[in-house]
Amino acid sequence: MDCRAHQIFSGKEDNYGGVVVNLMEMEPTTAQDFESKLDVSLAPWKVQGKRGIWIKLSSQLSSLVDSAIKRGFTYHHAENEYVVLTSWISESPSTIPANASHRIGIGAFVLNKSRDVLLPTVISTTGEDIWTGAVGEVEEETCIKTKFVEVLAFRERHQSFFERKSSVFFFCELEASNFEIKKQDSEILDAIRLLKVFKEYVNQPFNQKKEMLRFMANICLKRSHGKENYAGFSTVLTKNSAAKESYLYCSVDHADILNGKCDQACTSFFTTLFHKCFCFT
Amino acid sequence: MDCRAHQIFSGKEDNYGGVVVNLMEMEPTTAQDFESKLDVSLAPWKVQGKRGIWIKLSSQLSSLVDSAIKRGFTYHHAENEYVVLTSWISESPSTIPANASHRIGIGAFVLNKSRDVLLPTVISTTGEDIWTGAVGEVEEETCIKTKFVEVLAFRERHQSFFERKSSVFFFCELEASNFEIKKQDSEILDAIRLLKVFKEYVNQPFNQKKEMLRFMANICLKRSHGKENYAGFSTVLTKNSAAKESYLYCSVDHADILNGKCDQACTSFFTTLFHKCFCFT
Repeated sequence: MDCRAHQIFSGKEDNYGGVVVNLMEMEPTTAQDFESKLDVSLAPWKVQGKRGIWIKLSSQLSSLVDSAIKRGFTYHHAENEYVVLTSWISESPSTIPANASHRIGIGAFVLNKSRDVLLPTVISTTGEDIWTGAVGEVEEETCIKTKFVEVLAFRERHQSFFERKSSVFFFCELEASNFEIKKQDSEILDAIRLLKVFKEYVNQPFNQKKEMLRFMANICLKRSHGKENYAGFSTVLTKNSAAKESYLYCSVDHADILNGKCDQACTSFFTTLFHKCFCFT
Repeated sequence: MDCRAHQIFSGKEDNYGGVVVNLMEMEPTTAQDFESKLDVSLAPWKVQGKRGIWIKLSSQLSSLVDSAIKRGFTYHHAENEYVVLTSWISESPSTIPANASHRIGIGAFVLNKSRDVLLPTVISTTGEDIWTGAVGEVEEETCIKTKFVEVLAFRERHQSFFERKSSVFFFCELEASNFEIKKQDSEILDAIRLLKVFKEYVNQPFNQKKEMLRFMANICLKRSHGKENYAGFSTVLTKNSAAKESYLYCSVDHADILNGKCDQACTSFFTTLFHKCFCFT
C-alpha cells in the first residue's frame, strides 16, 4: 500500500493548467491533517507548473476554511452547501475566472389577442430560460396561460445588490393564449391585487420621476397598438455539437427565418465573412 | 458602561425584516467569544420577529466560519476578501434572495463605415456596461477606436460555468470611428492573430456543427450588407430618481426617438395603460 498516495489530494486537472480539488465527499478531518496534506499536495503542483488551485469544501468541512486561507487561498464563490477557495501558485499573472456577477430579472406584460394589456408583472428567476421563466411564473401567479412573444428591451444596472453585483432586467411581452382566468376566487383576487399594487406603484410621484419606468411603459403602449409599431427579439432554439440546447434571442424577423429554415442560408457564409475580414489590408 | 451592549452584535436592519451583521472591521476573536456573542444576539432578534440574519466575515475572520455554520448559518455568497452566511430564523418560508446567477459575455464585431468586417472578437467583462465594455476592450486589444452601434442578439446558456451558473452572451456591432490601426507592430500582429484564430476556429468541422455560431455569423453577414437588413437594440441613457445612471437597450428606431425627446411622448401614458389594464373584466 502506497502511504504517500493518501497524503496528496487527488485533483482534477482543468483545461487552463489548474487543479480542482473537490472535497464534497471528504470525511471531516483535523485542521492539522488537512494542512499537512495540502502542503504535500501543493509542492508537486508547483513543480509541475500548475497555476490555479481550486478547493471545494462542503459545509461539513467548514472548520478547514481557516486552514486553506492560512495557506494562501482566498474565497472565490459560495453556494448554500459549499464554499470554493482558490490559490494562484504560478509566477504568471492570475487568470482565475470571475465569479457570477449578474442576476436576471424579468418584467412581463401580458396582452390578449385584441392587444389589451391584461397584466404587467415583475419576476425573478434563476436557472430557467428567460422566456420559460416569464411564461411559467405568470401562470403560477395568475393562472393565465401565455405564450412568449418577444423580449422588447432590457436594462443593465450595476451595484444593484450585494454591494457590487449587477442585474439585467428583461422586459418581455407575453400573449394570453386563452383569455379565461380560472374562477378560483383567491387566484383572481391575486391577479387584481397585482394590478392594483402596480398601478399604485407607478402613480407614486417618486416613481413618476423614474425615466426607466416611463420608457418601459412607453414601449408597452406602442406594442398595445400593434406589434408592427415596435420590433423586439424573439427566440431561436439552438443546439451545440453535444446536443445541449440554448436559446438565441434575435430580431423577430430574422428569428422567423431561422426558425423556418435552420440549416439553409448559412452555407458558405464563412467564406464570404472572412473574405471581408481580410479586406482591411 | 453597559457590558451587555458589548455582548450583542450591532446589526443593520434591512427592508425585509432582516439583520445584516457586517464584521469586515472586527478584530480577530476566539471561536468561543464569537459563538456566545452570536447566541446572545440571536435570542432578541428572534423575539423581535427578525427573519433573515446575514453575517459578513472578512478573510481575517475565517476561523469563525465554522462557528457560524454550527449555529445554523449556511453559506450565501463569497468574494475574494469575504464570505457571507445567512440564517433564516423565522417560522415563515425563507425569502432569502438568490445569489448572482449569471456571467455576462460580449461578442463584438467591428465594421468600418464601408461595412467591411474588420474584426470579430470575444470579450468578458464585469461591472462595466455592455456597450462600454465592448468599446473599451476592442480598443485595448487592437487599438481600433470604435463606437457602439447595437446589440444584435443575445444567447442565454445554463450550467455554463461553476456547475450551476448561467451566462448571457451579448452579440454587438461596433463601428470603427476611424479606420487607422496604430502602426505598432505588436498590436497589428495581435489583431491579425485574432482574425486567424477566429477563422481557424469557425472552420473546424467541430464548430461548423454549432448552430449558434452559424446563426451569429449569419446575422453578421446581414449587417455587413447594411443596417437596414437587420434591426438590433440600441442604448438609451436613463437616470433614476437618485440620478443614478443606467442603460436601457431597446429597438433601435425607438431608441432614436427616446434619445431625441426623452421627456415627451410619455405623458399621460399611465392613464391609458391602466385603463387598458382594467379592460379585461
